[in-house]
Amino acid sequence: MTSFTVIGHTASTDASFSLNDLPGGGGRMDLLCRAIASSLFLSHGIREDTICDIMLLGPPHPGKIIRFDGSALRSMSPDERNIASYIKKALAIPTGKTFREAGPGLLIRKGVLADQLTEKNYAVLDESGTDIRNIASEDMPDAFLLSDNRNFSEEEMSCIRDLPKYSLGPAIVHADHAIVLILNEIDRRRSGWN
Amino acid sequence: MTSFTVIGHTASTDASFSLNDLPGGGGRMDLLCRAIASSLFLSHGIREDTICDIMLLGPPHPGKIIRFDGSALRSMSPDERNIASYIKKALAIPTGKTFREAGPGLLIRKGVLADQLTEKNYAVLDESGTDIRNIASEDMPDAFLLSDNRNFSEEEMSCIRDLPKYSLGPAIVHADHAIVLILNEIDRRRSGWN
Repeated sequence: MTSFTVIGHTASTDASFSLNDLPGGGGRMDLLCRAIASSLFLSHGIREDTICDIMLLGPPHPGKIIRFDGSALRSMSPDERNIASYIKKALAIPTGKTFREAGPGLLIRKGVLADQLTEKNYAVLDESGTDIRNIASEDMPDAFLLSDNRNFSEEEMSCIRDLPKYSLGPAIVHADHAIVLILNEIDRRRSGWN
Repeated sequence: MTSFTVIGHTASTDASFSLNDLPGGGGRMDLLCRAIASSLFLSHGIREDTICDIMLLGPPHPGKIIRFDGSALRSMSPDERNIASYIKKALAIPTGKTFREAGPGLLIRKGVLADQLTEKNYAVLDESGTDIRNIASEDMPDAFLLSDNRNFSEEEMSCIRDLPKYSLGPAIVHADHAIVLILNEIDRRRSGWN
């Protein structure tokens, strides 16, 4: 099981955002949709052993976490608009401190980063981190924290200070592309390609 | 310079497709938009040394090639809807056998696969191909041909029969994710990471 948590610093926390304006009115919701697609889609199927949590920190109710669980999701297609419609569906239900199901494999709760990080062995990406290709397979983390187009805030930095840091290559890439690279590295190790 | 050509077997060749229905009315245009984004976007900037050509084979005028040239593109953002608006802009101008500019870094021409493949040293992706990590840097191709969600047609297969074949890992991934993996491998070699 591999988990990704992607922070959307400006992502809308109300279901009323427009599917026609994911970057603007959605608060860079387009980027989160692509991160979900990267986490879950194979050419012909869904990664059933992968979870993608998006942490929405935009107005009006910052601090909602939506979980896309590949083991249970049904009928989702990989285009941004379709994935965003799942996000709207989750945002439309009442939210408490524990996950509540908005549909198969689609869950939502209130939450903050500090809580989220206690649930799994998280790593973060950092240009100066260890090259992911050089990590021993037994040390590969089971969860990765990524940020949207913004850097981690000071408060977030204090939460992640002690997490292991890995780099993916010389170019700094978007969160959705980083997820593709991480999953490829994990796929290779599981199948004995490395 | 690295080039990608992505075949869109059902992609609309008329500018009238709806930005609200890229998968359906656009003929899986969403997938081509994501492939363009993977080819060209870094976290903070554009890959100026990369070109992405999409070959549109859907109705009503199959056989149009739209080029996104990272060295000249201006103001594009990575969401599907924005990239699709560039595709519409290119499809709206008259098209001949040579590239015509529809905007900075945005060109269009009529064309077929056989012609396209003569222009560069192409490789294709194949599950049974050589692992891209094992290619000598001097043998790295300068162009890659990819398909959308459909397999190459019989006619296309006859064009690509003799091209070098590379694989990216044990999982078969979408074209846009494949492009991310290829560029990471190229980035690493150029920067001495391998």
